[in-house]
Amino acid sequence: MRNLRSVGASSERTGVPARRRLLVKKFGGSSVADVERIRRVAQISLESQRAGDDVVVVVSAMSGETDRLLSLAHKLAPLPDCRELDVMIATGEQVSVALTAMAIHAAGGHARSVLGHQVPVLTDSSFTKARVLWVEEGPLREALGHGQIPVVAGFQGVDASQNITTLGRGGSDTSAVALAAALGADVCEIYTDVDGVYTADPRVCPTGRKLRSIAYEDMIELASLGAKVLQVRSVEIAMKYDVSVHVRSSFTDEEGTWIVNRERALEGKVLTGLACARGQARVELVGVEQQPELVMALASLLAELNVSVDMLCHARGVQADTTTNIAFTIPEVDLLRARQRLDPLVASLKTGELRISEGLARVSLVGIGIRSDPSIPARLYRALTQEGIVVSGLVVTELRISCLVDEAVSDKAVCILHEAFGLGQTDVVGGPRLVARSGTAA
Amino acid sequence: MRNLRSVGASSERTGVPARRRLLVKKFGGSSVADVERIRRVAQISLESQRAGDDVVVVVSAMSGETDRLLSLAHKLAPLPDCRELDVMIATGEQVSVALTAMAIHAAGGHARSVLGHQVPVLTDSSFTKARVLWVEEGPLREALGHGQIPVVAGFQGVDASQNITTLGRGGSDTSAVALAAALGADVCEIYTDVDGVYTADPRVCPTGRKLRSIAYEDMIELASLGAKVLQVRSVEIAMKYDVSVHVRSSFTDEEGTWIVNRERALEGKVLTGLACARGQARVELVGVEQQPELVMALASLLAELNVSVDMLCHARGVQADTTTNIAFTIPEVDLLRARQRLDPLVASLKTGELRISEGLARVSLVGIGIRSDPSIPARLYRALTQEGIVVSGLVVTELRISCLVDEAVSDKAVCILHEAFGLGQTDVVGGPRLVARSGTAA
Repeated sequence: MRNLRSVGASSERTGVPARRRLLVKKFGGSSVADVERIRRVAQISLESQRAGDDVVVVVSAMSGETDRLLSLAHKLAPLPDCRELDVMIATGEQVSVALTAMAIHAAGGHARSVLGHQVPVLTDSSFTKARVLWVEEGPLREALGHGQIPVVAGFQGVDASQNITTLGRGGSDTSAVALAAALGADVCEIYTDVDGVYTADPRVCPTGRKLRSIAYEDMIELASLGAKVLQVRSVEIAMKYDVSVHVRSSFTDEEGTWIVNRERALEGKVLTGLACARGQARVELVGVEQQPELVMALASLLAELNVSVDMLCHARGVQADTTTNIAFTIPEVDLLRARQRLDPLVASLKTGELRISEGLARVSLVGIGIRSDPSIPARLYRALTQEGIVVSGLVVTELRISCLVDEAVSDKAVCILHEAFGLGQTDVVGGPRLVARSGTAA
Repeated sequence: MRNLRSVGASSERTGVPARRRLLVKKFGGSSVADVERIRRVAQISLESQRAGDDVVVVVSAMSGETDRLLSLAHKLAPLPDCRELDVMIATGEQVSVALTAMAIHAAGGHARSVLGHQVPVLTDSSFTKARVLWVEEGPLREALGHGQIPVVAGFQGVDASQNITTLGRGGSDTSAVALAAALGADVCEIYTDVDGVYTADPRVCPTGRKLRSIAYEDMIELASLGAKVLQVRSVEIAMKYDVSVHVRSSFTDEEGTWIVNRERALEGKVLTGLACARGQARVELVGVEQQPELVMALASLLAELNVSVDMLCHARGVQADTTTNIAFTIPEVDLLRARQRLDPLVASLKTGELRISEGLARVSLVGIGIRSDPSIPARLYRALTQEGIVVSGLVVTELRISCLVDEAVSDKAVCILHEAFGLGQTDVVGGPRLVARSGTAA
């Protein structure tokens, strides 16, 4: 049993290459979408094992399955019980692990499906959004010792009372990285339907360039800002335990993108990439009485709802010195739930009103150079407004700059910024060439 | 923890009616086939709880779901690994329990899904055909104590190594009865899409009559001979622990059929009903050398394959005194698997050949009067041959007489026998009127 909270970076991973490696291979929903693709997963896993490595496989639900189950639940109840939701949606991965293990058997290998509660992957009890607390390594080591390939159900865990939990959308990435950390794996390979991490989505911006490597911090920003390659939390765990993550395609043998610490990642770049999150809503509380507790009350209310809030800003109102404006951005899908709590709060205030704008997209530029180059916000603003794009919000942090634009022009905005900051060119940086300062990023 | 092997009939079940009853309600696949029907299950369960009873619900997979999953597995491998099959098909019930618990919540009640490994229902390790060893009652009692309705996944259990197991087709009945036995429930109610047990399938034989009650032994025969109302093993467990089973429709409030011990069941009848199993194959080993070990070898071979064999008979061959014929009946679905072992066995014999006839049906007449009335086989034979039906095999035991006929005429055979033995009439018996002799039947 290895406690994820206390185990540091493992020295096992720095051994000489000649020894037997341990690889955790995670396959997403599109990689197990049908029988043919599951056979491909079996083949990749067996080839790796036959080449002399120990292999642990983690799989997601077949693509579309989780949505099918969720719609079944929502037909029954608009707000289904979260504990029961987890019991239900965990079946998606359960089917995948069984089929994948069967496919490995059918190809002449030895495999054994392992469910979240069988590992076990212990989590807290936040149903539908649980956090991994620790991962037991015993049963997996035992299976590996017998020459088997353990096929572990991603996305699911179990709480201390034996309730089934799930880790939130994309949680299989987190499962894979947590297993890799617990086992001290050499690499956590994330097989997906894209071949790596790009400076910008190549479907949106044709000059988008695949990165050979990216630092954990930059990947965390990109993922939390809309890049759908990986779940944010998985990268946080990878960073914490220094797990080397390799994002690659399950359809080719090509190298993908390595997610590693900044020393190993830096290509001399200070700007890494662009991410775009559509379906955002801007919530503004305008002209409310200045109350120091209001922002706190708001923030804790939204935290309680487990709504992810971004670009919260707080500015003096225009009406008088005694009023203030508060604005923040939340995903449109969380708006209904948030308003159930916001509306009574606003109604209880003496002055002020709530303004909601929907149909927005958040376009973000990520890289270690953002803070150190004060010209970047101005260049971003100029590039977009020159092309007639209205920027309706801006926030700058250590590692990123995000702006809000209309959803209809968000693809155009991504392309403009990709060009303006020279992200398509391998050796161009978006600001003064900086020496990497590992560990200083937020 | 209550060991099913050692717990006898519970005296709790004979208490006065005024006390709080404990009801186990099992709903089959057609009763949870869609969102509307699941709401009906929630309603039935809540009404019962509100009337003052403790309720434990057991559900099957939504109808069609198990077949969908099996076909997925068979697309991947013709003989999928049994351990993984169980992991996969257990998800059908997992989805049902979650949805049912959600529906009870949505209707204002308190429910909690409980999976096989969460009860736990401990079984042996015969994947896809596991037997229940014991049922832990603690977690269910605790949920009941909190006013909750535990919604238990039928069909599934867990072995001593925490592997998921399933109990074979119709295994949810067994789950329900085993839970009822462990909890000392007053009644195990089996809700289904028919309204009880009939003397013959009313879709085949319009004069088929619903029985008010039936003895365990007769029900075991009917179920093992093709009546699809209940899984045989569930009735065996009910008999062993004296659990009163009530088979009824989930679409009406009408009384169904009670399955109880013979003292309470007897309506003065010695013939209870007819069952028909289609899809049977007759396997004949003709003209083999007389070897006393051969029948034993055959029987153990088939037992090893877990193939259910019926109507095994062994007769002297016609060719010479030194040869013999052996014939038996097995389900067509097991034929391929059985031949993988039979063919080498036959090839190793000096003389003899294997003859297979497919497309047969086994029609069986069940009742305590069979053995005591020697005229029954002759009357059965006459009734069928008079109508031009060829009887290609006959076996008589304590409680039943079975004959093999062509599948194409099996419905006709059922109707002929139903008429010939007067099963549609409430007060007519098929032979001398006997006093029930409880416990003497096989």
